[in-house]
Amino acid sequence: MALKRYERYADEISELIRTQALRPGDRLPSVRQASASRRISASTVFEAYYLLEARGLVQARPRSGYYVNAPRQPVQAEPLIARPAPQSTRVEISDLVFEVLGSTRQFEVVPLGSAFPSPALFPLDKLARSLTPAMRRLDARRMVQDLTRGDERLRQQIGLRYGVEGMGVNPAEIVITNGAMEALNLCLQAVTQPGDVVALESPTFYAALQALEHLKLRAVEVATHPRHGVDLASLAEVLQRHPVKACWFMPNFQNPLGSLMPDASKQALVELLARHAVPLIEDDVYGEMYFGLRRPLPAKAYDRSGLVLHCSSFSKCLAPGYRVGWVAGGRFAEKIQRLKLMSTLATAIPSQMAISDYLEGGGYERHLRQLRQSLIAQQALALELIARYFPAGTRVTRPQGGYFLWLELPLEVDALVLHRLALAQRISVAPGHLFSADQRFGHCLRLNYGHPSDARFEAAIKTVGALAGQLCGLAG
Amino acid sequence: MALKRYERYADEISELIRTQALRPGDRLPSVRQASASRRISASTVFEAYYLLEARGLVQARPRSGYYVNAPRQPVQAEPLIARPAPQSTRVEISDLVFEVLGSTRQFEVVPLGSAFPSPALFPLDKLARSLTPAMRRLDARRMVQDLTRGDERLRQQIGLRYGVEGMGVNPAEIVITNGAMEALNLCLQAVTQPGDVVALESPTFYAALQALEHLKLRAVEVATHPRHGVDLASLAEVLQRHPVKACWFMPNFQNPLGSLMPDASKQALVELLARHAVPLIEDDVYGEMYFGLRRPLPAKAYDRSGLVLHCSSFSKCLAPGYRVGWVAGGRFAEKIQRLKLMSTLATAIPSQMAISDYLEGGGYERHLRQLRQSLIAQQALALELIARYFPAGTRVTRPQGGYFLWLELPLEVDALVLHRLALAQRISVAPGHLFSADQRFGHCLRLNYGHPSDARFEAAIKTVGALAGQLCGLAG
Repeated sequence: MALKRYERYADEISELIRTQALRPGDRLPSVRQASASRRISASTVFEAYYLLEARGLVQARPRSGYYVNAPRQPVQAEPLIARPAPQSTRVEISDLVFEVLGSTRQFEVVPLGSAFPSPALFPLDKLARSLTPAMRRLDARRMVQDLTRGDERLRQQIGLRYGVEGMGVNPAEIVITNGAMEALNLCLQAVTQPGDVVALESPTFYAALQALEHLKLRAVEVATHPRHGVDLASLAEVLQRHPVKACWFMPNFQNPLGSLMPDASKQALVELLARHAVPLIEDDVYGEMYFGLRRPLPAKAYDRSGLVLHCSSFSKCLAPGYRVGWVAGGRFAEKIQRLKLMSTLATAIPSQMAISDYLEGGGYERHLRQLRQSLIAQQALALELIARYFPAGTRVTRPQGGYFLWLELPLEVDALVLHRLALAQRISVAPGHLFSADQRFGHCLRLNYGHPSDARFEAAIKTVGALAGQLCGLAG
Repeated sequence: MALKRYERYADEISELIRTQALRPGDRLPSVRQASASRRISASTVFEAYYLLEARGLVQARPRSGYYVNAPRQPVQAEPLIARPAPQSTRVEISDLVFEVLGSTRQFEVVPLGSAFPSPALFPLDKLARSLTPAMRRLDARRMVQDLTRGDERLRQQIGLRYGVEGMGVNPAEIVITNGAMEALNLCLQAVTQPGDVVALESPTFYAALQALEHLKLRAVEVATHPRHGVDLASLAEVLQRHPVKACWFMPNFQNPLGSLMPDASKQALVELLARHAVPLIEDDVYGEMYFGLRRPLPAKAYDRSGLVLHCSSFSKCLAPGYRVGWVAGGRFAEKIQRLKLMSTLATAIPSQMAISDYLEGGGYERHLRQLRQSLIAQQALALELIARYFPAGTRVTRPQGGYFLWLELPLEVDALVLHRLALAQRISVAPGHLFSADQRFGHCLRLNYGHPSDARFEAAIKTVGALAGQLCGLAG
């Protein structure tokens, strides 16, 4: 569903505030000025300003106008780029990941360590309502024929969304998968053999490490800037020195850093890999959760050689538990389809039907917009709480999308110890150890702010901050 | 849901007829005799006899009683046991499988080559109706927590069904998977490394061959009797001569032979493998589709050492397209759960909820009973048509369950040529080439009788039979 005019106008002003083109204390144009210069009605301007006020970005001063609020987030240093080990390594991370994940499953644990945002942020009831009618409309023969590539209507809807971003992706290139996790695994299998070297970001998402371990691949980690993503000079060096068979990167809101590669870097990345004939497995599951005005393009938008395998899913932004992801596999599409037929055969049809119906019915854009607004507000609060409660010297990222913060604690803090102490208080955190094959980020934490910013959340941040403070004290 | 008394009585008589304890022309006990000797009411006996008449097994002769009908299936030779090659081989079957499967996807093709029974045989509407209410009852936190092992209620329901069969399987041992295909793949990964040797039946299901190819495993094929399944003497020899790391067998209604291992053979199989410490990956997706009085036990019922990994699913007997299977992994359960977390993470929740609701609501037994009755009738008709229309010398199996017939045609018939000729007439068949790593069954066919026995089906069998006859003539 398209945004209303006042929402578009409010978004433009939000973006000006976010990028500091409008600064705290600045006065917004008067309603009359704005109405005249933008050729929109005064009531549209009013609605936009009300919305901005509701978001906490501006406040009305009686008989004076609307003014930009001071940002709630105090200025705190961001982490620096880390230099990973130059050699490639076998991956043996799973035992640790299982231990940490296994311990954080209970409902009563505050899920700061979770990989998912809160299910309360999703239109789960609306999706559930479409399940029965969608399945009853289905031609029963669809249940047993041509299952592997996935539902045609759903592939068309996904193709349309690429189209809106200006990308021409043929629905025939798309394979629907059991979440992005299967998509990424199929891609790895399509482009590598056991023993091959795969380049990852540093730090990287532990599931990428697990997938490499599972497929007996070696990892080489590439320096990754907390704001701007993969460092291309470092990547060029890695490509010179290692027989890299694939890269698995997240150009949009990388997990755990939240970094966003600028468009020019994405283009340069795709061109660099094309020169080396190295496929790019692009994990883009957070791309819809942007805080700016537009969805950042995937690297695939710059692909001319079919070497970019673009993976995404609905699990993080619409339908957790439905297990519907996809891959637009470029020149590897046919191979991916075959690999899927040999491993899981097909993706559950009820899940595909419900999502397909939901997309066709409209409302997805509005849902995403609300989701983004929630995440923007929750990030601001989380940053404020971290500044207040974490020990001096803590660095923290300031991502422009997604729902993760990456914290660099004072060097003497062992995040695995912190994880265990926090868990004893029924709070989970994701220790930095999980995010590198050589467990180099032992003083770092990933925190999930995608859960309601309530008193429980605030108390949990406060507790983790205090525990981190104690660990600094102990070491000193 | 438990069978009614008259249904149980009718089933007993059906079994006596099937095993020829009651022969064509024999008279059933009079209603008064049966009522007195069985201590059941006369109306119960009447209902049972009406049911047998409806099934076409008996007929009433006025003022005389009920008599067993002549079997519709004429006596035709069964195939003989095949002797597979003694050496293990790399598997390279996928291109052929893709070519054959890819060509048979169109709706208008009569699906004699399909691997699925007709969706018209399943309670798809009832399942669809439970999707929405089941999802709306779900605690949303379940959507993001503890996903990998699968829904607890569903695992309990599956555990109960093992219990009814007299097997104690702890629900904690069960992992819910994306169909049996994922279960089988996870099992292979849990017990083998690339390059290992895996023993398969001969002929075997092509998906097993594809899975081995995918995981770079070697196949050694074991002689398998068309009626009694894996030949244990041949297996013992194979175990002596090859470093077998796992067996992938289907003791119940093997695909494609339909063979059923007797209980004593299953027990001997499990004991033989235990002595060699070789895990058994048991593919039991057809076990519920038995034509006898009771579900045949899986080999896992005899497992004392945790070496049997029992895989099954709801895709072939209840809910195609829902992609819900499972594995009870014995001592490998934890490893399988980890492998799933690393590859597809979880199984779709809506599918699990719908099936869990359906099982709890009762009616599954009644559905299965109807399904079995349909398959019994359809097999009888298929055998009759094959006897009528296929060339002399054709041998055909007489499975006691499932929905496949395996035909051994005169040696000069190339089943791949037959497949192509049939496809030109919009009929699919599964050529024997697909069912062995060395494509040794080139004069064999697998035919699916799990689709409505209508005029279209009859015409298709007639056409394929005529084509086979022409191929004999051409070669002669």
